Amino acid sequence: MSKNQSTLFLSFDDIKEIIHQVGIDQLMDDMIFDIESAFKSYDITKTTTPKRSGFNYEKPYVGLLEWMPLLKVEDEIMLKIVGYHPENPNQHNLPTILSSLTNYDINTGRLKSIMDGTFLTAMRTGAASAVATKYMALSDSKTLGLIGCGAQAITQLHALSRIYTFESVLVYDTDNETLNSFEERCKALDLEAKITKTSISSILEQSDIISTATSIGVGEGPLFNTFETKPWLHINAVGSDFPNKIELPLSFLKQSFVCPDYKEQAFIEGECQQLPENEIKEDIVGLINNIEKYKYIQQETTVFDSTGWALEDYISQKLIIKYAQKFELGNYVDVEYKPEDSKNPYHFLKVNKLAELS
Amino acid sequence: MSKNQSTLFLSFDDIKEIIHQVGIDQLMDDMIFDIESAFKSYDITKTTTPKRSGFNYEKPYVGLLEWMPLLKVEDEIMLKIVGYHPENPNQHNLPTILSSLTNYDINTGRLKSIMDGTFLTAMRTGAASAVATKYMALSDSKTLGLIGCGAQAITQLHALSRIYTFESVLVYDTDNETLNSFEERCKALDLEAKITKTSISSILEQSDIISTATSIGVGEGPLFNTFETKPWLHINAVGSDFPNKIELPLSFLKQSFVCPDYKEQAFIEGECQQLPENEIKEDIVGLINNIEKYKYIQQETTVFDSTGWALEDYISQKLIIKYAQKFELGNYVDVEYKPEDSKNPYHFLKVNKLAELS
Repeated sequence: MSKNQSTLFLSFDDIKEIIHQVGIDQLMDDMIFDIESAFKSYDITKTTTPKRSGFNYEKPYVGLLEWMPLLKVEDEIMLKIVGYHPENPNQHNLPTILSSLTNYDINTGRLKSIMDGTFLTAMRTGAASAVATKYMALSDSKTLGLIGCGAQAITQLHALSRIYTFESVLVYDTDNETLNSFEERCKALDLEAKITKTSISSILEQSDIISTATSIGVGEGPLFNTFETKPWLHINAVGSDFPNKIELPLSFLKQSFVCPDYKEQAFIEGECQQLPENEIKEDIVGLINNIEKYKYIQQETTVFDSTGWALEDYISQKLIIKYAQKFELGNYVDVEYKPEDSKNPYHFLKVNKLAELS
Repeated sequence: MSKNQSTLFLSFDDIKEIIHQVGIDQLMDDMIFDIESAFKSYDITKTTTPKRSGFNYEKPYVGLLEWMPLLKVEDEIMLKIVGYHPENPNQHNLPTILSSLTNYDINTGRLKSIMDGTFLTAMRTGAASAVATKYMALSDSKTLGLIGCGAQAITQLHALSRIYTFESVLVYDTDNETLNSFEERCKALDLEAKITKTSISSILEQSDIISTATSIGVGEGPLFNTFETKPWLHINAVGSDFPNKIELPLSFLKQSFVCPDYKEQAFIEGECQQLPENEIKEDIVGLINNIEKYKYIQQETTVFDSTGWALEDYISQKLIIKYAQKFELGNYVDVEYKPEDSKNPYHFLKVNKLAELS
């Protein structure tokens, strides 16, 4: 099977090798830069991202499996498969979010690559928050709050720390074990900031920037009802990604400039589902491309409604493929059957028979 | 990575080895049996198959890439990715249809397996026609017609030959090379029937059973307008799988008992898109489960509107996995990242650092 017709399979060991060569900070910087560039140059006539769809269920555990497609016109198609199973860490020692990424040649429909999407989802979600925060929060922000201290909180902290030098990180989680292990889990990042466990109300009061990344149940939100905050508080609302799953109270959204990653999706499953459409002035693409007009929002309370956009996954996939090619990583495997005679699925039978005769 | 958390990767070499061990005839018999059983026992409360969706485009070549999901309630999820690129054989020496199949554990969302779907699509499409034909055509049918002699025609002939002993196979294709190579391509099947190249009108006149599997263009159908046929002619209309892509004339559908594989899909992209919903009495599940009531249709002209149902793919996937496990084939690979600490995507960084110290 020649390289140009087979499938590049990148295991997580390959991604680890990329990180070993490039460094985790540089990879995050690349991802932030590439996602910001993709937001800036986004053109709906060249890149199509239909709303994701999927299956959700209550049994045997609460769960959701979705497919997130992206069409790069006359170029390629990406498909992300992503599962959200909040019982995974406790029941199966697996991440809440498991994912894989594939892409397809638009000339032939052939599968070009398959790779992990679990790690990349965590990274790109952090990177997307970093991009949005750069435009929506004050540049001298010193205090970060994290509500929800699971896997996504690590990359929120990492990505935001690439843009801001935090003095203090205030953290909260409903699960004591998750809360207590957070500082230990962050050690590999070598950050200077002091990490302090505290209450949601203290986080709201003291933070310049907050990321919420919780597994709050459908219909059980918001995470808080009353709040006192700094007048310029920016929140990255990361956890809301399902109908009736919300993290922030309507009253906070009403007083704030709310910017979704991807409007159509956010009205169905983001914080934006609480708001009438006419209250959303811009999505992240509109905001970034009209930054002079919206400079004032850095002084006000703001929300980045991050539902997770296939464009971010596409960018992270491309970045990994670029490095895999640079370092000659991965294996070329034969997933789809490609008979020598394209009109004969049983071609190999003939070959077998000839082999038997010889 | 332990077997129970990693992904079973089956290359086409593994599928070939299954065929080597089981035999292509036995595998087709299994597939026919399993698909018939699945149709018989189909329960919409236990198996959900949303309509497929996808991207279609005209450039650089006419093409379509679709995802076909299936949920087996409280059990697993299958996803078929399938591309349809009719220029593939001539432009790229690749099959028109390229496909891969994956399935996911419903407990955790983890990717359980990945395998070829190209070969299996061809086989299951043949098997589905065989099942439908058994119920819709006369049991002593002797003459088979094939309009369109590409990859799908091979498995139509193979599958139908497992149910019927044909004396004569009449074939037609618009492409002379495809037509002329057909007999050679069928040799591995060791069939007794005489294969004769002829016109569409002769095929219509003389056949007891016809399968149409063409790449006729959108808006360019039907394949014929006038027809004289045996009063009991049964047609498997395999090629119609896209809005405005049709193979059969409305007048033939109007006089015939038309049975789709999957109604909702057939009204959008099958022959059924030409008919009002109330003219469809039964789908294949209804037909098979009320066979006494519909015995009479074997004497009439009938059409199996085969758009390709995810249920058939799921059955073929399960069959291959069963044999792969029996013969201990395939490799367990690590697609999704599963950190030892499920709440720390950067867990490996810590491990790396400890390794560097030692």
